[in-house]
Amino acid sequence: MRNRKIIMSEQDIPRKWYNIQPDLPRPLDPPLHPATNQPLGPDDLAPLFPMALIGQEVSQERWIDIPDEVLDIYSMWRPTPLYRAFGLEKELQTPAKIYYKYEGVSPAGSHKPNTAVAQAYYNKQENVKRISTETGAGQWGSALSFACQHFGIECMVYMVRISFEQKPYRKSMINAWGASVVPSPSNLTAAGRAILEKDPNSTGSLGIAISEAVEDAASREDTKYSLGSVLNHVVLHQTIIGLECQKQFEQTSDYPDVVIGCHGGGSNFAGLTFPFVKEKLDGKRNIKFVAAEPASCPSLTGGKYEYDFGDVAGLAPSVKMYTLGHDFVPEPIHAGGLRYHGASPLVSLLVHEGVIGAAAYDQLSIFKSAVMFARTEGIIPAPESSHAIHGAIVEALECKKTGEAKTILFGLSGHGHLDLAAYDAYLSGAIK
Amino acid sequence: MRNRKIIMSEQDIPRKWYNIQPDLPRPLDPPLHPATNQPLGPDDLAPLFPMALIGQEVSQERWIDIPDEVLDIYSMWRPTPLYRAFGLEKELQTPAKIYYKYEGVSPAGSHKPNTAVAQAYYNKQENVKRISTETGAGQWGSALSFACQHFGIECMVYMVRISFEQKPYRKSMINAWGASVVPSPSNLTAAGRAILEKDPNSTGSLGIAISEAVEDAASREDTKYSLGSVLNHVVLHQTIIGLECQKQFEQTSDYPDVVIGCHGGGSNFAGLTFPFVKEKLDGKRNIKFVAAEPASCPSLTGGKYEYDFGDVAGLAPSVKMYTLGHDFVPEPIHAGGLRYHGASPLVSLLVHEGVIGAAAYDQLSIFKSAVMFARTEGIIPAPESSHAIHGAIVEALECKKTGEAKTILFGLSGHGHLDLAAYDAYLSGAIK
Repeated sequence: MRNRKIIMSEQDIPRKWYNIQPDLPRPLDPPLHPATNQPLGPDDLAPLFPMALIGQEVSQERWIDIPDEVLDIYSMWRPTPLYRAFGLEKELQTPAKIYYKYEGVSPAGSHKPNTAVAQAYYNKQENVKRISTETGAGQWGSALSFACQHFGIECMVYMVRISFEQKPYRKSMINAWGASVVPSPSNLTAAGRAILEKDPNSTGSLGIAISEAVEDAASREDTKYSLGSVLNHVVLHQTIIGLECQKQFEQTSDYPDVVIGCHGGGSNFAGLTFPFVKEKLDGKRNIKFVAAEPASCPSLTGGKYEYDFGDVAGLAPSVKMYTLGHDFVPEPIHAGGLRYHGASPLVSLLVHEGVIGAAAYDQLSIFKSAVMFARTEGIIPAPESSHAIHGAIVEALECKKTGEAKTILFGLSGHGHLDLAAYDAYLSGAIK
Repeated sequence: MRNRKIIMSEQDIPRKWYNIQPDLPRPLDPPLHPATNQPLGPDDLAPLFPMALIGQEVSQERWIDIPDEVLDIYSMWRPTPLYRAFGLEKELQTPAKIYYKYEGVSPAGSHKPNTAVAQAYYNKQENVKRISTETGAGQWGSALSFACQHFGIECMVYMVRISFEQKPYRKSMINAWGASVVPSPSNLTAAGRAILEKDPNSTGSLGIAISEAVEDAASREDTKYSLGSVLNHVVLHQTIIGLECQKQFEQTSDYPDVVIGCHGGGSNFAGLTFPFVKEKLDGKRNIKFVAAEPASCPSLTGGKYEYDFGDVAGLAPSVKMYTLGHDFVPEPIHAGGLRYHGASPLVSLLVHEGVIGAAAYDQLSIFKSAVMFARTEGIIPAPESSHAIHGAIVEALECKKTGEAKTILFGLSGHGHLDLAAYDAYLSGAIK
């Protein structure tokens, strides 16, 4: 039988995360306080995050131990499988070898629990009783609910109202894991009330939900705040994805020439690619990296590399990143997880330095590739992840032209079981 | 790190299915023709099934080779993981060791593809161009769509109208895999038109949908019919589940004292248990078996062991089985996959002979156990599978009373990602 699925025992889960900061071509520009425009110190962040995570945010240690308790929970779904896409290769008639790392086997169905579990753990270590967060379509909110449930931490999720109403199933998942979820804007915070006063029918936005979750945490002694992407410590926790991949490739006679991930805030993309980026920075291998983003929200390919706020209201710190402007409102595409105006500062720096490339794809092409993938590989992918699928198909078709038998690796960050309405829209011709 | 997940390489997928027929305490009573009441011969079935499957239906061979092409598709998700339920054990404070075999990692999210792929393969071998089938909530229809897609066979699914309208996402999955799906009763068949004439607003039933799918196949040269449970060849294909479990237990120092599966038509239950039942029939081990069924559709615990029709209309063959009567209409519980009036003749015989036991559980208890499982093990289970979870919890609590450290194995036949509305109903108190 041909080797379709490269698996490993849980004994082989990497024991350390990889921190790329000491290997960067130049140091990160510091985050600035939104009010004073001065570099942020640990004290500025202490009301929002436990000290361990603030330490990881600025750490220059290359390898950071994964706590045993986190490894134990990881072992519920990790190591995740690395697949050889025989079906897709055959369909494309490409000489390329295509591999994908599948994070949809996690309880929440995406890569998000990799950092949710770590964040909940460090909060628990510092006796935090309650965590607040925001969520758009619900991927992050459900992942954090799952993680908090495990450590007995109360979890409060502010969910963008339009998703709360139109996509009830992520909300159900959050409830099943015992967390609280309210539509945002809510009347629980001053930020929410101010919006509702102006517009009682506001459908909400990620920016508003961030403001509410931050206010919730800042105003309560027992509560910290948690973010599911963008920040350095979030990226750090996600490197487990790429580190596992490297071990899995040792079981094959192949190694990636091209690595592709979808890109929203950057944590999925960075988690898959940074361990491979290290090899490029070390001068060991010449690998091509593609951050696949939506054409309707093209931070990396259409944004500017400059200081900007992390949230819409300008209350969050200002960071140096590729940004479309903090007041940019992307179209309501089905890949809700990629609708962020900015990008991880780490990914941004590497794009700016030319280490990493990026490409933007339109929604119709994405769904065409998603359906081709579902029909040839069996897995129905999340619309977000389908950007990476499409990027891989573009590369594989290029190989077909040139005759090169490149090895292409992409990240399949999640399944699309809760996105089936989007497939209906595509199959009925409603996506143009 | 403790061993939570027992995995195997695809090289370890069993190469043969186990046919229990030669090991039964006494032979099966023959199926009877619905019109003549005479034993059915292969010729009676030939319009509906390919000869290879008719042969498997009556085979007395103990081990039947799994074709290479089927093994290759199995390797997309098989071997499935066997989990040790450390989280659930801790929650219950039981001395019992609880294991579960998880079939939700398949593309369709349940055990159904194990037979769908095999059936599509044998149809393809005999040049069948099109397959018709029925589906209730959509688990089976989506699995067969996935399988047909792989072999380039057209697939036509008659889906019970109320599910078609109320549960659109399984329909979306069927479409994503390129099959056709219509609400039943439809105006495509005489059976459907007859129902619609009497009741234009009929919400349909599994019995009506079976009649339509059978008529579709019987009336077209290019089309065969496919059934997702009950029949001997379906049960045969599902034994891959239990056979893998046995190999996986070799990696541990444990072996099941109790094996529990949920029971609707019987294929999931039989697939998990029959390889273990063989050990009991061979006198090698004394294992307890529990078929967990819904209290509202208690074929095994509340039905009679007698000849009855497989469908509501009395057009399908009559078989000796536990049945509530072919005109029995179960309540519309959330575990739609367990709403069948009858049971597999193989399972029925073994229950009647006292080899296998059964228990019926009410819906409220099922959901309580499902949520406990989701919160301790991370996976949100299908309502059907939650019957097995509940059965395992009952056994584990009994061990807590007696102090016995039994090893309990149950089958987690699918995930509940498309059943989240049922969780909402439970969590909001709407399930009494």
